[in-house]
Amino acid sequence: MYIYSNILGTFVFNQNFQVREKVMFSKEDTLKYFEDLFENKAIKPELDFEKKFKNIVNLRLNPDDRMDRVFKALEGTKGELYSRNLFLTKWQIKKSVQADLLITQASDSISEINKAINLLSKRLREWYSYSLPEIENTIDDHKTLCEQIVQKSRKDLMSKNKIDLTMGAELSDPDESAIISLASSILDLFKQKDSKEKYLEKLMKKACPNITAVAGYLIGGKILSYAGSLKSLVLMPASTVQLLGAEKALFRHMVNNKSRPPKHGIIIEHQLLQKAKKDDRGKVARSLADKILLAAKVDYFKGEFIGDRLKKELEEKFK
Amino acid sequence: MYIYSNILGTFVFNQNFQVREKVMFSKEDTLKYFEDLFENKAIKPELDFEKKFKNIVNLRLNPDDRMDRVFKALEGTKGELYSRNLFLTKWQIKKSVQADLLITQASDSISEINKAINLLSKRLREWYSYSLPEIENTIDDHKTLCEQIVQKSRKDLMSKNKIDLTMGAELSDPDESAIISLASSILDLFKQKDSKEKYLEKLMKKACPNITAVAGYLIGGKILSYAGSLKSLVLMPASTVQLLGAEKALFRHMVNNKSRPPKHGIIIEHQLLQKAKKDDRGKVARSLADKILLAAKVDYFKGEFIGDRLKKELEEKFK
Repeated sequence: MYIYSNILGTFVFNQNFQVREKVMFSKEDTLKYFEDLFENKAIKPELDFEKKFKNIVNLRLNPDDRMDRVFKALEGTKGELYSRNLFLTKWQIKKSVQADLLITQASDSISEINKAINLLSKRLREWYSYSLPEIENTIDDHKTLCEQIVQKSRKDLMSKNKIDLTMGAELSDPDESAIISLASSILDLFKQKDSKEKYLEKLMKKACPNITAVAGYLIGGKILSYAGSLKSLVLMPASTVQLLGAEKALFRHMVNNKSRPPKHGIIIEHQLLQKAKKDDRGKVARSLADKILLAAKVDYFKGEFIGDRLKKELEEKFK
Repeated sequence: MYIYSNILGTFVFNQNFQVREKVMFSKEDTLKYFEDLFENKAIKPELDFEKKFKNIVNLRLNPDDRMDRVFKALEGTKGELYSRNLFLTKWQIKKSVQADLLITQASDSISEINKAINLLSKRLREWYSYSLPEIENTIDDHKTLCEQIVQKSRKDLMSKNKIDLTMGAELSDPDESAIISLASSILDLFKQKDSKEKYLEKLMKKACPNITAVAGYLIGGKILSYAGSLKSLVLMPASTVQLLGAEKALFRHMVNNKSRPPKHGIIIEHQLLQKAKKDDRGKVARSLADKILLAAKVDYFKGEFIGDRLKKELEEKFK
């Protein structure tokens, strides 16, 4: 019996160099790798060892020569093995992009687009208050303000809001249009945010239907982003899930015992916690984190959809 | 002689209640206010005191009654005085919007758009590296990367860059288009930044031609923004101008003497300082701040254009 290993796996031969057993490294990957190879016609499928081995076994040679030939067949030329190795590595990296990574990107991009919107909206408000401070003061919502600025002329806004005399300056046309174009850029960012939210919702409903049912797609996305991946989320204790996103407060508490430990991280945005009385929040957060983790486990192991049941249980508990 | 003051100014009457003298509060403003009033037909110009007084003087009344009438004429109804006061205040706020405030807004908005671009570009790079890491790695410039992503399909990019086999995953169409739409949003922000830079250049060349000649419109705008206004910039010592934007480093030095004092603030972006040797930088920064302050003073007092001369002097000094 001979044992031989190379980049593709480990092979066991009998004395006639027939393959008795083979363990491919990362079995599933290698199988898919072969499938991929055959699909991709640019790379020739020269990997049918068994055929090669049969030929060798059929030749009448002394055992040493036979072994040499088998090794050569296995390794191919040096370049071939190298390119196979490269291909396999690339293939593994390729396949490591899972839905949860895309969810993380989508969720983080939403947070960052939000940051950009707030940054530019603050600027817009300060700037626009030179022109019509009365309007800027009365409209709290950034999006509505931008829409009003872009869609309506200064005169229309003044007459609509019954402002005879504004404290704002009569800016020249270029000054006005500088403000208007900034507002329309912010509106574009709002559109971008909406489209990313829709995209995230689809991803979450497909890859993590249970988490989505329990926590909603926005909070669920943030939890996945904080955890790094669905797998590492599943491996967390519920108490960690409860505090995801509250790392600063937690470390502050750990360094300085005077400050209280946080009760909840990102899940504070959940409507159950928003509705809960202040004293109940710790309890609700604990149960919510429990259920989210349970949902995550079901999603990870592709179990049946129990999200609605979990959500109902939570809601009934804290009615 | 009678002296009477109200919101519009102080009036001195003789015994016949003829106006002998009047000092209007903020003379210039009040004059413009009258001009404005007559232009603005919505508000009736009922402020020709002299006429009213003449009528009163022409009536045959005992002095007490006369005085009453004069006061009434001056005050009008309570509402009238209130609305005059309001108008004057609004008018003053209106007129307080000067070019330097708009410059500050434009300059700050450019910094903030830049921040937003960097924030979203980092996200885009991380996300795009799932699809074509080889391209993401080779293109350092954010704008170029966005353009490539938006304009070219994945296949084109691969064949153009001779990538047979990418480590990137084959994303589905919705996943790809989520990335592409983020890239096009970033490109929009680049456009917005360009338009704001052009706008700032125009403002600076008009309001602060000398500063622009010496420091350039971008640095000049930032200096004005840090100073708050052209007036407060003019009142600063040159050493403060030199350190504008380096407040953190300065306070760090003041609190802890071990850290060195900063040599330059925002002016470090100036090409003279960029070209200078490290040892010369303090000297160059000092001279540059001097000239910028001089230019600012000329701009503030609307003097003749000497920016080119100042710039030449600087360049010759540090050739």
